[in-house]
Amino acid sequence: VSQFELNKEFLSQIKLAVEEENDKLIKQDISTLHPADIAEILDEVNMEEAKFIYQFLKPDAAAAVLVELEEDVREKFLKELSSQQIADSTKEMDSDDAADLISELPDNIQEEVISKIEDVEQASDIVDLLNYPEGTAGALMAKELIKVKETWTVLQCTKEMRKQAKNVDYVYTVYVVDNHEKLIGWLSLKKLLLTPEKTIVSKIVKKDVVSVKAKTPLEEVTSIMRKYDLVVLPVIDEIDRLLGRITIDDAVDVIQEEADKDYQMASGHTEVVDSGDSVFTLSRARLPWLLVGLLGGICGAKVIGLYEGQIQLYPEMAFFIPLIAAMGGNVGVQSSSIIVQGLANNTLGLDSILQRIWKELSVALINGLVCSVLILGYCLVFAESLNISLTVSCALFAVIIFAAAFGTFTPLVLNKYKIDPALATGPFITTFNDIVGLLLYFLIGIWMYGG
Amino acid sequence: VSQFELNKEFLSQIKLAVEEENDKLIKQDISTLHPADIAEILDEVNMEEAKFIYQFLKPDAAAAVLVELEEDVREKFLKELSSQQIADSTKEMDSDDAADLISELPDNIQEEVISKIEDVEQASDIVDLLNYPEGTAGALMAKELIKVKETWTVLQCTKEMRKQAKNVDYVYTVYVVDNHEKLIGWLSLKKLLLTPEKTIVSKIVKKDVVSVKAKTPLEEVTSIMRKYDLVVLPVIDEIDRLLGRITIDDAVDVIQEEADKDYQMASGHTEVVDSGDSVFTLSRARLPWLLVGLLGGICGAKVIGLYEGQIQLYPEMAFFIPLIAAMGGNVGVQSSSIIVQGLANNTLGLDSILQRIWKELSVALINGLVCSVLILGYCLVFAESLNISLTVSCALFAVIIFAAAFGTFTPLVLNKYKIDPALATGPFITTFNDIVGLLLYFLIGIWMYGG
Repeated sequence: VSQFELNKEFLSQIKLAVEEENDKLIKQDISTLHPADIAEILDEVNMEEAKFIYQFLKPDAAAAVLVELEEDVREKFLKELSSQQIADSTKEMDSDDAADLISELPDNIQEEVISKIEDVEQASDIVDLLNYPEGTAGALMAKELIKVKETWTVLQCTKEMRKQAKNVDYVYTVYVVDNHEKLIGWLSLKKLLLTPEKTIVSKIVKKDVVSVKAKTPLEEVTSIMRKYDLVVLPVIDEIDRLLGRITIDDAVDVIQEEADKDYQMASGHTEVVDSGDSVFTLSRARLPWLLVGLLGGICGAKVIGLYEGQIQLYPEMAFFIPLIAAMGGNVGVQSSSIIVQGLANNTLGLDSILQRIWKELSVALINGLVCSVLILGYCLVFAESLNISLTVSCALFAVIIFAAAFGTFTPLVLNKYKIDPALATGPFITTFNDIVGLLLYFLIGIWMYGG
Repeated sequence: VSQFELNKEFLSQIKLAVEEENDKLIKQDISTLHPADIAEILDEVNMEEAKFIYQFLKPDAAAAVLVELEEDVREKFLKELSSQQIADSTKEMDSDDAADLISELPDNIQEEVISKIEDVEQASDIVDLLNYPEGTAGALMAKELIKVKETWTVLQCTKEMRKQAKNVDYVYTVYVVDNHEKLIGWLSLKKLLLTPEKTIVSKIVKKDVVSVKAKTPLEEVTSIMRKYDLVVLPVIDEIDRLLGRITIDDAVDVIQEEADKDYQMASGHTEVVDSGDSVFTLSRARLPWLLVGLLGGICGAKVIGLYEGQIQLYPEMAFFIPLIAAMGGNVGVQSSSIIVQGLANNTLGLDSILQRIWKELSVALINGLVCSVLILGYCLVFAESLNISLTVSCALFAVIIFAAAFGTFTPLVLNKYKIDPALATGPFITTFNDIVGLLLYFLIGIWMYGG
């Protein structure tokens, strides 16, 4: 009843057992563990050790462990297995997990593995699923489900369901279809339990079924499942025929991946990485944004270069360059993040772009006033000249207003043109606001100093 | 079978119907809608209109709509309802939704509402749930579940379940308890369907049940549900007695909230906000970090002030201030975001802090070299002096290395001392890296120029 938590002691114990080829101890160590826990162990040991442990797993556990492994570990692991071994392991998997696993293999091996799957129905389900493009409902669904005809009696349903249920681990919902396999509604198991056996299904079917088409994008799938609190969502084809179902555990993974992606893009990664990825992959994901930052820095240098004379005359103008640049960046990121998140979670409501910008400008007005007054007070008290005090204070206010407007506008416009608004946040907005901020700062400076 | 999407036309149609008090049209408009869709409409109209629409809802739909409303709208809405109305609406709710709703009321009204709930069992369930501290499994669970005794036969189970099922919308799993109400395992409905009626439960019970204690924190709850792909998770007390269950739809909301919170903290918000919040709330959430940025900017000004002479002699030193500051910020955010995310998703594995820093330093080494060489080339080609070229290039390299180390170290250390590492990312790291970056830049500059 208690959870397993992998620690260093347990890991060394297992590694030692592998080294000593102590079969009994290994079997004993892993016998009570959930496949997800065993996968966690295999993620941490080296490939030789993983292979050694893997051989002691029963077929169903071995299949579940394969599904649960981290993607990069699984990739290496699958290379060590024969096509026959992989085909056998898919026997114990749901069609969606089997298709996912096979989709990760090189093309030529995919065909080999599929040709070695004995169960023709399973093989054809997998081939079907592999045909849906990644990122659509079709590619996430499983084919296993329980369906009954609207013309059946409850008794017939129960009998048929016993047959179908052999392939379905969790039933959740019983789908009702017509004679053309079109989805027309659903029944809860509870309803079936509580209804007299001779009742016809069409009398008790609930027609308020929410479904998606196979080509529906995953963001829409997850937002529908969240909005309607669904545990399972049926997938239909163009003419409403029932194809499969998406369960919430798979949708949760998509939700987490989406959130991770947005977070990483905002923090300057151009591809989704994992802390376990190689140094090379991590560098590659980060370099593009750093180069954008570098370019921005060079532009910034050009802008300041234009005002070289001003700096030589009034070197205190240089002191506040980082302040102006940093504040523009901070405000821009604050504004854009709320917009990006609102777009992702679909919580912006029906407001227009202008209403949004207006609201963000009001926020910027308040925060800009507070910050400008504070910096003005600071500069005056600590005996800076009146000129620089007014310059910094006015420029700061202008930068905060501009940064808020730009940070709001950019993701909204990108979204309108179907570009991922998450691209806009982070380094891009920071960099652009830096440059505009510097321009504003020096323009105001020259005006203040009467330069 | 199709989804509803709220648009401006539909909204004006509803608003017009409310204005004309056209009861028939309103009823017709909302009759086919899911409560989540009706809630979406009520979120968008004003309070008077919302109240007018609400009165046409059937009791079960009205209760579901209350649950689905946005929190701030619900708060205003509940103020308009009498204690008796609120008490009545909880009749149609699951215990967890009812407890959530009541917990949002002011203390004195909470008691009034509870005293008006007719169903004593429901009232006592709600009081129970209200006692668990927010952020724990106990506060998220619902009391409704199906449980059977291990000594019963399958036939007895089916009979008892028919009684219990009246209060449970979705069954998912049947829990098995002993005579002391201790959780000892579970049964799938499928298993019950497929087993002969005279079989004793203890023969078919599955004992590999994952559970959590009532006081388990929610982050642990969601990570367990994700790891083991659970749709429902039983909650037990200190001596293993079954208290309730957490369903995945509630856990999904927690996962999304956690992700939203991390994203907002990284983008400079100190409280979790929603794009629909008031201008004042939005300003308040953002101001603290802006003040940190302001303070950082003042420190930056002090640092540059120390080197005023250097700038007067070599004004080109000022040109590259924004570049150095921005790059330090970017690299720091990149490194810290991966650590914060790894900590949140529990994917850092068993690596030590030193191993982590080492890896991030390797990444920084690669990216730092690329950026430094590029900026050196740029400076040399565009005829800047050798001194400034070498200064910028060396300082950039040093800043990138420092920022990566600091960005990795800070969240790891905060986490070790049980402070939310998300606090570390965004403005804090950016600001600190700005200051250190400037120091490094001028120190290297003085050394290069032989100042």
